Amino acid sequence: MTVATTLHDELRDRFGDRFSTAAAVRDHHGKDDSHHPTIPPDGVVFAQSTEDVAYTVQACARHRTPVIPFGAGTSIEGHVQALHGGISIDMSGMNRVLAVRPDDLDATVEAGVTRLQLDRELRGTGLFFPVDPGADATLGGMAATGASGTTTVRYGTMRDNVVSLTAVLASGEVVRTGGRARKSSAGYDLTHLLVGSEGTLGVITELTVRLHPVPEAMAAAVCAFPDLDEAVRSVVEGIQLGVPVARAELLDATAVKAANLHSGFDYAETPTVFFEFHGSEGDIKAHCAMIEEVCRGLGGTAFTYARRQEDRARLWKARHDIYPAMLALRPGSHGLTSDVCVPISRLAECIAATRDDMMSASIPWGIVGHVGDGNFHTLFMIDPHSEAELAEAEALNERMVRRALAMEGTCTGEHGIGMGKIGFLREEYGDAGVGVMRAVKAALDPGGILNPGKVLGPMDLADARAKSSAGVRQSR
Amino acid sequence: MTVATTLHDELRDRFGDRFSTAAAVRDHHGKDDSHHPTIPPDGVVFAQSTEDVAYTVQACARHRTPVIPFGAGTSIEGHVQALHGGISIDMSGMNRVLAVRPDDLDATVEAGVTRLQLDRELRGTGLFFPVDPGADATLGGMAATGASGTTTVRYGTMRDNVVSLTAVLASGEVVRTGGRARKSSAGYDLTHLLVGSEGTLGVITELTVRLHPVPEAMAAAVCAFPDLDEAVRSVVEGIQLGVPVARAELLDATAVKAANLHSGFDYAETPTVFFEFHGSEGDIKAHCAMIEEVCRGLGGTAFTYARRQEDRARLWKARHDIYPAMLALRPGSHGLTSDVCVPISRLAECIAATRDDMMSASIPWGIVGHVGDGNFHTLFMIDPHSEAELAEAEALNERMVRRALAMEGTCTGEHGIGMGKIGFLREEYGDAGVGVMRAVKAALDPGGILNPGKVLGPMDLADARAKSSAGVRQSR
Repeated sequence: MTVATTLHDELRDRFGDRFSTAAAVRDHHGKDDSHHPTIPPDGVVFAQSTEDVAYTVQACARHRTPVIPFGAGTSIEGHVQALHGGISIDMSGMNRVLAVRPDDLDATVEAGVTRLQLDRELRGTGLFFPVDPGADATLGGMAATGASGTTTVRYGTMRDNVVSLTAVLASGEVVRTGGRARKSSAGYDLTHLLVGSEGTLGVITELTVRLHPVPEAMAAAVCAFPDLDEAVRSVVEGIQLGVPVARAELLDATAVKAANLHSGFDYAETPTVFFEFHGSEGDIKAHCAMIEEVCRGLGGTAFTYARRQEDRARLWKARHDIYPAMLALRPGSHGLTSDVCVPISRLAECIAATRDDMMSASIPWGIVGHVGDGNFHTLFMIDPHSEAELAEAEALNERMVRRALAMEGTCTGEHGIGMGKIGFLREEYGDAGVGVMRAVKAALDPGGILNPGKVLGPMDLADARAKSSAGVRQSR
Repeated sequence: MTVATTLHDELRDRFGDRFSTAAAVRDHHGKDDSHHPTIPPDGVVFAQSTEDVAYTVQACARHRTPVIPFGAGTSIEGHVQALHGGISIDMSGMNRVLAVRPDDLDATVEAGVTRLQLDRELRGTGLFFPVDPGADATLGGMAATGASGTTTVRYGTMRDNVVSLTAVLASGEVVRTGGRARKSSAGYDLTHLLVGSEGTLGVITELTVRLHPVPEAMAAAVCAFPDLDEAVRSVVEGIQLGVPVARAELLDATAVKAANLHSGFDYAETPTVFFEFHGSEGDIKAHCAMIEEVCRGLGGTAFTYARRQEDRARLWKARHDIYPAMLALRPGSHGLTSDVCVPISRLAECIAATRDDMMSASIPWGIVGHVGDGNFHTLFMIDPHSEAELAEAEALNERMVRRALAMEGTCTGEHGIGMGKIGFLREEYGDAGVGVMRAVKAALDPGGILNPGKVLGPMDLADARAKSSAGVRQSR
């Protein structure tokens, strides 16, 4: 253990109390919000600057030790588990909003700034940052996982809202992927290469994001439907008519039941869509009328509006809390969640077939979806002690992913690959596509130290890591 | 010349008349719309399918011979010149629109389909494809160069509007970069890696693009200003107020003069902005009123509307013809054009400083700009026989690029790097950024056969190519 001791000593020398090998700290950094088991790193560095991150990566590179960035730990496909041991870099201390520039509609933040923190800092500027995955994730983590969420149908994903970023490469070099111009055709698109790379190509330390003007007016609406199919079609037909909905969230009967219990609503326990509209007063009136007509034509009932800020806030808080609310329907259960995304013309069919497949499941489940994007999520509330339930949920998930891929969809709309969907990546992109990804990974991280084992699975770089006397610890 | 003869024989065997080594054909494929000299390839393959492209790339790879994709030849930074000889693949025969899917708001096209061709095919669907660089470029070329244009302020660039694409890699393998879901967080973003890579990482053969609903109403407006500064500020202030302009095009006095002469207008020869608004009748009324108020507050005069389709069409045709129209101001001249893009808060300052620098130039010049993006273009009308004029224009261009970079801008907003801006790429991204790009290039094209010498300049792969008995021909 001499070399590993040396690495830990180096980190302790540099960081003092900001380097920890305490079991509780390691455990906390070895799991995210998914059902995947805790696999703790060997130690955790609490970074406060890009230089801290660069120092840590350089030290780990010298010692051929894995490096795993950690934001808020809210990812859900097993992104942060230390599959091969190594050092977790906790980014939460890099939480400064470096600049808000109303004239350019952008802001530059450190990677550990969270979504709600930025929200607070923007109050009074007339601007907001739209990407909203539900959890109060860090912006660095959201960039790294290519997050999106409820407002993506109108404002896009992280891919659309990151202007440029600063990252530490596997060599410890710091790269800046661009300036602040709204567009550029200068060279390869390094920003998009890093967004969604899940810490396997670099550690994101700062990012410049787009801000949007707070709309003049906002309104929410809720509509209940006799069946999932009509609920989905209401959104799809609205979008095809050109209504620029800002949010369009599907909740199945189970999700509505959970929201009623958790958030004190009394909605009919039937498939329901929460809509939101942004624009001028006139736009909103027109768009609400168009969507209401579409909904009524599809048998939608109980079309109600929430125009007051507090009513809208309550509605979206209920949507954000849907994951714990659903788990509470089966006390003691753990969640196995997955998502797929398909072309919107296939969405109703994909959701219906998935629901039909799940009808025979022995485990409770629910479906919610960002249906305007063609994206939906399944949640199984599984008994954490039952291998059989885990296997059953995984089999249902596998069939859902294959169904989505057969419809020209993707194996994950917004959760990412992590350790949970590695097998599906090859089914989606084929050998050629995965070959390109592996070539890029090998070129940028030849030692395989950056979040090894994620996205692309085991690389032929294991021998490099095997030389690390930090060893391979899997506390599964 | 045995090996090269063998390659040519192979290509002739496979393609017959669709392989040409005629001087006129080679010359046509050795230049774009820029001032860069003609450098013809050794031969041209007229591809009709992805398989044709894959066959050609495989053959060239075996013979270590460069491959240069060619669309419409409308690029303007020297993208298609055969710096190291080799085979040009003419994509114009791959001109089938493979699918238009109104329900999904997308279309799949072969790479040789041009912008105006797609426009025609979409008539009657209620949908349009917004990216409009002016020239009737191929969509494959527009993707390869990361094109944008007049409507980008509202609808985004090619990066924002390509859903996924099919490309032939340096190995001859065919890769598909995704399905048709509107979003995905599955693995590295291969679509964005190829968009803007200028044929140096793969040859794009098919692409799926986003379509947008034709707005209910459209209106254009023209406003003249006493000075460039106020003209720029009218757009920037309008955007900062949240007016979603669909187009906002600056013409300086020289450009207005050219438009008057070429297109029969009689606008005052003073800095002018052409606006366009898309939306409902109500939106347009509101947005026009807001912009008119901003313009009048800045001293704008002669604010006139063009609401009829034919008047709008005439206006935008004049804008699209501005490049030849300006060259016609100095008969016999050639154009040296460049573009930069800066944060919009710095745009007025950047344009003013650039204009001041050019005031002393001995060559006629003009400025136009997609000012809503922070992007503007300079055009020098140079004597094609004068080395001194070329040098003077290049020095002015160099100062403009450095000015933009100092303002956190980019050395090219939409023209790309080609052979014209290689030196500035390093100034923009630094050694670390260019190092990442070079590592990616070396990983995906280890033989250096894909459009060699572009974007990143000479690679350390020259010896691989030197072994090609096609040799290095530079007919500069």
